Amino acid sequence: MKARPVGLIDSIPFETVGVAVFALTGALVAARKGMDPFGFALLATVTGVGGGTLRDLLIGTRPVFWVGDPGDVLVCLMVAGIVFALGPRRVAALDGGRRGRALLWADALGLALFAIGGTSKALAADVPALSAVALGTVTATFGGIIRDILAGTTPLVLRKEIYVTAAALGAGVMVGLRALGLDPFACSAAGFAAAFGLRALAILRGWSLPVFPQRDGNG
Amino acid sequence: MKARPVGLIDSIPFETVGVAVFALTGALVAARKGMDPFGFALLATVTGVGGGTLRDLLIGTRPVFWVGDPGDVLVCLMVAGIVFALGPRRVAALDGGRRGRALLWADALGLALFAIGGTSKALAADVPALSAVALGTVTATFGGIIRDILAGTTPLVLRKEIYVTAAALGAGVMVGLRALGLDPFACSAAGFAAAFGLRALAILRGWSLPVFPQRDGNG
Amino acid sequence: MKARPVGLIDSIPFETVGVAVFALTGALVAARKGMDPFGFALLATVTGVGGGTLRDLLIGTRPVFWVGDPGDVLVCLMVAGIVFALGPRRVAALDGGRRGRALLWADALGLALFAIGGTSKALAADVPALSAVALGTVTATFGGIIRDILAGTTPLVLRKEIYVTAAALGAGVMVGLRALGLDPFACSAAGFAAAFGLRALAILRGWSLPVFPQRDGNG
Repeated sequence: MKARPVGLIDSIPFETVGVAVFALTGALVAARKGMDPFGFALLATVTGVGGGTLRDLLIGTRPVFWVGDPGDVLVCLMVAGIVFALGPRRVAALDGGRRGRALLWADALGLALFAIGGTSKALAADVPALSAVALGTVTATFGGIIRDILAGTTPLVLRKEIYVTAAALGAGVMVGLRALGLDPFACSAAGFAAAFGLRALAILRGWSLPVFPQRDGNG
Repeated sequence: MKARPVGLIDSIPFETVGVAVFALTGALVAARKGMDPFGFALLATVTGVGGGTLRDLLIGTRPVFWVGDPGDVLVCLMVAGIVFALGPRRVAALDGGRRGRALLWADALGLALFAIGGTSKALAADVPALSAVALGTVTATFGGIIRDILAGTTPLVLRKEIYVTAAALGAGVMVGLRALGLDPFACSAAGFAAAFGLRALAILRGWSLPVFPQRDGNG
Repeated sequence: MKARPVGLIDSIPFETVGVAVFALTGALVAARKGMDPFGFALLATVTGVGGGTLRDLLIGTRPVFWVGDPGDVLVCLMVAGIVFALGPRRVAALDGGRRGRALLWADALGLALFAIGGTSKALAADVPALSAVALGTVTATFGGIIRDILAGTTPLVLRKEIYVTAAALGAGVMVGLRALGLDPFACSAAGFAAAFGLRALAILRGWSLPVFPQRDGNG
């Protein structure tokens, strides 16, 4: 399984923007928890590079992307520093108070970007189609999962709203269009639009799939 | 450290059955949490392939087993789909209401299967005996640990009942018998019987080892 | 990226002492949770080798250090056995009752040892300076994070006291001095002193960095 080089437009900008917005969600959680600057740095970095790290570990890329080139770590540290420097009043305005809109939207953007970024790297490593969709989905959701576990909050992934579905749709659309031989950039764009669009509708309209009725309250 | 091929009977069926029963426990937890179909899919898949994923990462197999051949992911998705389709009444009957018997027993089966599956793959990679036992134990318990952490419930591994002990016993029996030069399949069968038998007795009779008395209530 | 051999004094003793003291913190948490001997073994081992395992995975060393040579696993098992054998009265005396002083101090020692151990291995693998600092920081804090997540307690890393900062300082001092061409052992010693010293002051005097004011109580 030899990785072939991935085109610049196809993956680099998605990846770094995805890292930055996930780092932003980590920093916003650090703000809610009242952490110190290095706590911001840790939570932003772990959230920002977590998904891509898991993807690289699963595919077998070594070392992991940010170890060889720490540019994305620098991006996370800068995001953490900026959010800390903004101070509570500006962050509260940005984050929309209790409703946490900025966190939700940044998470949605990161979810969509990592769904296609993870799928793109998986396809570049010539894994089977189902594995590529699974890798895209897992890596898109993993950054947010470790952020929420570290912070001790209920993972977004467990909410009733459409979440995992959006990542899986984006990855699936991308893999399907690639299989049809379409231009990689167009496939990525369509996958991104599908994932972000569906998640956006879930946030705006509270869309959800039919859930499994709970049997009792002690779940 | 070069992996030599492992016999079909020795590992493949154990592995896939173990993946399926752990996926079942993940789906049952998703049912308790009232998740949507893709939440079922994620929790079933992460639980089903989690233990083997950690094992492959630790040994250095790359890519991880399900990335190269996503058959086990497909098994997890099918299990998730079946449990979701069964609906709450049938799942409640299957799961035994509040007592969660099906989850406990499927977890016990997965624990025993992964104890020998993890040990088998570790021995095939020529790691030292103690490492093989540790790998068998860690990978047998890891699927359940991430399931419980993701779902926000107290990990089974922290319960007072015999749990880790059963996995360690199965792995230890298997490594010990292999060192005596016995037939690999017989060693796996004995290890499975030891792990599942001990865990079954723990479930049925509440067996536990002497625990460390707690000093106060705020542990 | 080829690892060159690391001098004995430079890394081996730090590593094993770090594993032992993190294993001790895992065993102390197992004592608080009233676990059985194999629960002690699992929690001590996962905590003891967790940080180094993540470091090796991220750098791409395979197999992970303790799989090839399970000496450090043996150390964890011995620590777990000793703490269990001590019994509740002696452990309570050691741990300082509710205040958990032994756990805090062992964690501080492990944090400092892994900050330099992780940084040392990262530098030996010729990763960029910022990656080395990030690897040292993440691996120093990871053992304690998984211990606390497994045990269901609030991660030390989220406390207001200086914690991540100490690990990052130790790693940063070590990388900085190495860049100046100083003797590796002296760099490690200075990094250790910086990390442990800062964390010790945080424990003794409650030192903290300015934190981000919380906006409301529902964090």
